Amino acid sequence: MSTTTDRKPSAVDSPTVDVGALETVLLGRWAEIRRHARTLLLDPRLHRVEGQSMAEHRETVLGQLRILAQEGDVLRAFPTALGGADDHGGSLARFEETVVADPSLQIKAGVQWGLFASAILHLGTADHHERFLPGAMSVDVPGAFAMTETGHGSDVASIATTATYDPATQTFDLHTPFRGAWKDYLGNAAVHGTAAVVFAQLVTRGVNHGVHAFYVPLRDPATGRFLPGIGGEDDGLKGGLNGIDNGRLHFTHVGVPRGDLLDRYGHVAPDGTYSSPIASPGRRFFTMLGTLVQGRVSLDGAAVNTSKLALIIAVTYGNQRRQFAGEHATDEVVLLDYAEHQRRLLPLLAQTYAQTFAHERLLEKFDAVFSGRSDTDEDRQDLETIAAALKPTSTWHALTTLQTAREACGGAGFLAENRLVGLRADLDVYATFEGDNTVLLQLVAKRLLGDFSRQFKDIDAGGVARMVAERAADAALYRTPLVRVVQTLADGGDRRRSAGKLQDTETQRELLTDRMETMVAEVATALRPAAKASRAEATRLFTTHQHALLECARAHADLLQWEAFTAGLESVEDPGTKQVLTWLRDLFGLIVVERNLAWYLINGRLSAGRARTVTSYIDRLLTRLRPHAQDLVDAFGYAPGHVRAAIASGAEGDRQAEAREYLRRLRASGAEAVPEKAVRPAAG
Amino acid sequence: MSTTTDRKPSAVDSPTVDVGALETVLLGRWAEIRRHARTLLLDPRLHRVEGQSMAEHRETVLGQLRILAQEGDVLRAFPTALGGADDHGGSLARFEETVVADPSLQIKAGVQWGLFASAILHLGTADHHERFLPGAMSVDVPGAFAMTETGHGSDVASIATTATYDPATQTFDLHTPFRGAWKDYLGNAAVHGTAAVVFAQLVTRGVNHGVHAFYVPLRDPATGRFLPGIGGEDDGLKGGLNGIDNGRLHFTHVGVPRGDLLDRYGHVAPDGTYSSPIASPGRRFFTMLGTLVQGRVSLDGAAVNTSKLALIIAVTYGNQRRQFAGEHATDEVVLLDYAEHQRRLLPLLAQTYAQTFAHERLLEKFDAVFSGRSDTDEDRQDLETIAAALKPTSTWHALTTLQTAREACGGAGFLAENRLVGLRADLDVYATFEGDNTVLLQLVAKRLLGDFSRQFKDIDAGGVARMVAERAADAALYRTPLVRVVQTLADGGDRRRSAGKLQDTETQRELLTDRMETMVAEVATALRPAAKASRAEATRLFTTHQHALLECARAHADLLQWEAFTAGLESVEDPGTKQVLTWLRDLFGLIVVERNLAWYLINGRLSAGRARTVTSYIDRLLTRLRPHAQDLVDAFGYAPGHVRAAIASGAEGDRQAEAREYLRRLRASGAEAVPEKAVRPAAG
Repeated sequence: MSTTTDRKPSAVDSPTVDVGALETVLLGRWAEIRRHARTLLLDPRLHRVEGQSMAEHRETVLGQLRILAQEGDVLRAFPTALGGADDHGGSLARFEETVVADPSLQIKAGVQWGLFASAILHLGTADHHERFLPGAMSVDVPGAFAMTETGHGSDVASIATTATYDPATQTFDLHTPFRGAWKDYLGNAAVHGTAAVVFAQLVTRGVNHGVHAFYVPLRDPATGRFLPGIGGEDDGLKGGLNGIDNGRLHFTHVGVPRGDLLDRYGHVAPDGTYSSPIASPGRRFFTMLGTLVQGRVSLDGAAVNTSKLALIIAVTYGNQRRQFAGEHATDEVVLLDYAEHQRRLLPLLAQTYAQTFAHERLLEKFDAVFSGRSDTDEDRQDLETIAAALKPTSTWHALTTLQTAREACGGAGFLAENRLVGLRADLDVYATFEGDNTVLLQLVAKRLLGDFSRQFKDIDAGGVARMVAERAADAALYRTPLVRVVQTLADGGDRRRSAGKLQDTETQRELLTDRMETMVAEVATALRPAAKASRAEATRLFTTHQHALLECARAHADLLQWEAFTAGLESVEDPGTKQVLTWLRDLFGLIVVERNLAWYLINGRLSAGRARTVTSYIDRLLTRLRPHAQDLVDAFGYAPGHVRAAIASGAEGDRQAEAREYLRRLRASGAEAVPEKAVRPAAG
Repeated sequence: MSTTTDRKPSAVDSPTVDVGALETVLLGRWAEIRRHARTLLLDPRLHRVEGQSMAEHRETVLGQLRILAQEGDVLRAFPTALGGADDHGGSLARFEETVVADPSLQIKAGVQWGLFASAILHLGTADHHERFLPGAMSVDVPGAFAMTETGHGSDVASIATTATYDPATQTFDLHTPFRGAWKDYLGNAAVHGTAAVVFAQLVTRGVNHGVHAFYVPLRDPATGRFLPGIGGEDDGLKGGLNGIDNGRLHFTHVGVPRGDLLDRYGHVAPDGTYSSPIASPGRRFFTMLGTLVQGRVSLDGAAVNTSKLALIIAVTYGNQRRQFAGEHATDEVVLLDYAEHQRRLLPLLAQTYAQTFAHERLLEKFDAVFSGRSDTDEDRQDLETIAAALKPTSTWHALTTLQTAREACGGAGFLAENRLVGLRADLDVYATFEGDNTVLLQLVAKRLLGDFSRQFKDIDAGGVARMVAERAADAALYRTPLVRVVQTLADGGDRRRSAGKLQDTETQRELLTDRMETMVAEVATALRPAAKASRAEATRLFTTHQHALLECARAHADLLQWEAFTAGLESVEDPGTKQVLTWLRDLFGLIVVERNLAWYLINGRLSAGRARTVTSYIDRLLTRLRPHAQDLVDAFGYAPGHVRAAIASGAEGDRQAEAREYLRRLRASGAEAVPEKAVRPAAG
């Protein structure tokens, strides 16, 4: 699939793409780790076997997990002393690639190392690391991450499982008080898990100190039977990811030794005295949940990789498959030469590029924070917010891309052998797990409002309103700190240039930034009374503006992706490649503008005449980009052994060559039948 | 699920829905047949068993098909003499309901009776009916409909299988010349089919008379082995519908007796003389393919029914599930009380109602044509075009609705036991089979352009342009005949009322009609040069406007649905129900306007100020409709035995009641732990 043949850079008006060089740019900072992972993932033992039963698939994936553990590179995030590499960014870069083998393997690995072992690492202390990490890392102890309950998923603070300390026995009484408090949807819980990190309300001396994590053995490894007091259920068949044994757990007065509380952020002395390095229960809760961000970062990366696979399949097939005669009566038209086919696929390709660059920025931020190099409260918050903005965007984008690719491949796209349907089924739940997409976008919006308020805390409500009205004259006044994280190009003076052309970088930046900032300012102004209102009135205000809040978050995510893509252009040296990528970036920017065209018109940012040109400029970009579509997907750098889709293998082209050759010979032989309309026979 | 309790009609400002009466309205003209079918479909033997292997699922569905055949009502469309009822509309109404048992059963039934047996009925003559229909109807002969080839799906006229007549043997030589001409994606071909209706280019006396259908035995029923000269492959696992054994077939010089050509529209005499009642090869082709329309009609109905199931599940769960505290610190908020949850689900509910009414109109049209009561060329064309407009709309809508419902139910929505993921996987291919959605919309657009041209054939291009410009003054000038089919309310004078309120029926009609007509006129004007241009130039013109053409078709489909909903309001008598349904119709109309808001602004149909009110009026409608959401899904009339989703069973409410009771008792006992923030202990 990937070609690394040298191609000469060429003139800007007829550019070519240097596929090999572009591939290296896209691989980013952790290129070597990604390449190493991709080589390993060519091993057929790690590939999804279509058509396995749920039970078979589960066993296959457990076996694959052990292969990864032996190979070792997957453990990069763990301490060097325990065989890891203390390499957080590299670990995720590696882990995200796993999705091309089988998303079930990626997520099972995520459960085992990203959640279970990672909770021991980040919430536990040296003693826990020593006792529990080796088994978790080697998969000798498959483990569940028991946080979500049937009754509470998004609202973790409200989980109902309790762990009540008894100084007499020096144990916690871990207990599930009612059916809604059963732990649910947990990977490794249905069959394989012999231990779990269980989250429960920690109660000691009559006080509830909130959610804490406990290491709890679940099953006898020899028999696979639950230990006394523990029970559960299999979640059964799911819409996808059936290589993971999700299940439910409940605890009936299970005694957990005091030492098995993972007590980095909350310690209980033998007499039951509670202590914590973080005084505020709220901050403590969010700190403990902070490790969850790596799940979101890696889902973002895996979703982008899956979009790449989908586009490789659909573009390759669209470049070979022909249907209906066109310009020439005898030659049928290649699908990708249809304008609508381009309209369906190329904007998705543009956004996948934008997300590739945005993810790289997110991963760099993640690495800076988790390595401790740049780990202030603000860094953590920035990381959380960018992840919360990108994960919903890329997971929804992957579902759209997989479905569009599936439909663009017609009936062939529906066959499991062509992978699109299986990947779509697996990726479906990425939109709601590790933070429901809508809930995450709400977090982003809250952060945007917070930034906004801090910036204007000395201006009264009327002042804010006036400022919003005057924005036309001073658009650069407010800049969210989040955008700064990815915005690397220097601003030159006033960004508001009314005469700017749509293909100008600054015009696009202005349009995207302006919309996000204006919407944030409007919602902030509208919500201002909520601070002093009754709970009922504040709830009503929030409800009224919930949709607008989510739109702010989406606008922010659009801008983050666009800025990352724009910054990414700087790393491209070959002029032909740079020209094509600039068109692709323009396409992304203008698709975002087109999607929100009504907003620009209503708010007087674009005239009706200019608005019309958005769509015609998009059409022009599609025509320019169409000849480069194959290069642009080849540059993703996945080999046929990663793609493994029969329709993207060249078989379609071979079949057409065979048919053409047959017809040519038939014609030459003179045996070809004449069409009825050519002879006009007497018809009854 | 369905309640038929009498409810008093109430005042317009606080209306209630008469669920039972509304259910009857929605069941429409074939209410009794639908009710009968639904009762039968409560039989657990007909239900999808989740988790079966592909092989098991295929056998289950074949068995279910035989149960349906024995029951007999499914054969209504066949001649009374053969045990049918000559009832075409009723047959489809019945058939569409089958989807609630298992979409695989619906589609396998569609293959057997709607395609295989139906081709014998419609393309064959008395002798074929006598020889082949009994086995096809009883499923003694499971049959494939062998039209699509690996190389040609949408472009049926170009299939490459040939049937060459030899007067010496009085047989056709049925032959597959190359791999691309293998028949593909055929239900019943992989395992069960013992015969097929095979489409091939009919060649006799050196002339190709185009695509014709042949009855061809495939396998020895005793051994299941292919007959000599016939071979094939299993398509294997698919993204869904795995209860159907799709496969490939190829023919190596298979002799087909002259009498097995289904010769209603094309006859070959013993000496090889071809004759047909339809002189034009093109018209003959489209007439023979005309029976395919019933597949599109029934897919439209089945897709609408599936959207209903999805909304029953998501709305019922959304009315029970609670997450995060809101107005009251102790009571968590029901999901459907969140504005965004309403925004996600209620517009889908509105469109599902619109599609229910639109489908009923389509089915009435279908019945009029197929019963022969109203079967002119124009009727056939209207039927084809309405089906081509509605099938893409409702199948895509079903996918969106299933996915939105799935996400709205969170992790629970991803479990197979809650059905949303399985239904979505099965419905996926509805978007591309029986006519690819994009290709169908293109047919609609071509018909719209044709109508337009006919209407103005005496006006030159300049005249058309002027007419478009003057439309503001005379909007009622042009009315597509297609809209007349569903438009039953009388027009009162000039529909262009600039001051009209958005909730006025005439204002909505004007906005929707205006957009469709204006776009059609614009594209028609732009494409006018194509008629006299070179093939290359015509292709270029078409390509340039392909996206706009498809937008015309979508606008037409929007209008068809809106008109059908509006006409449907007339059949509602209870004033409270009528009020609520009118809000729902308004919501549908305004969602369509909001989706195309940029068009209305660019084209000066709405001012910026008015455009803003579209969204705020939608918000108001959501608030008004929210209390009626449960009634509106209950009125679909499906029982728990049809829905069969654990989360829509009331289990969630029971769990919450148990949790509340536990907490109440704990509080009463005085044993409840105090939250840390309430006691502010000294923290380390």
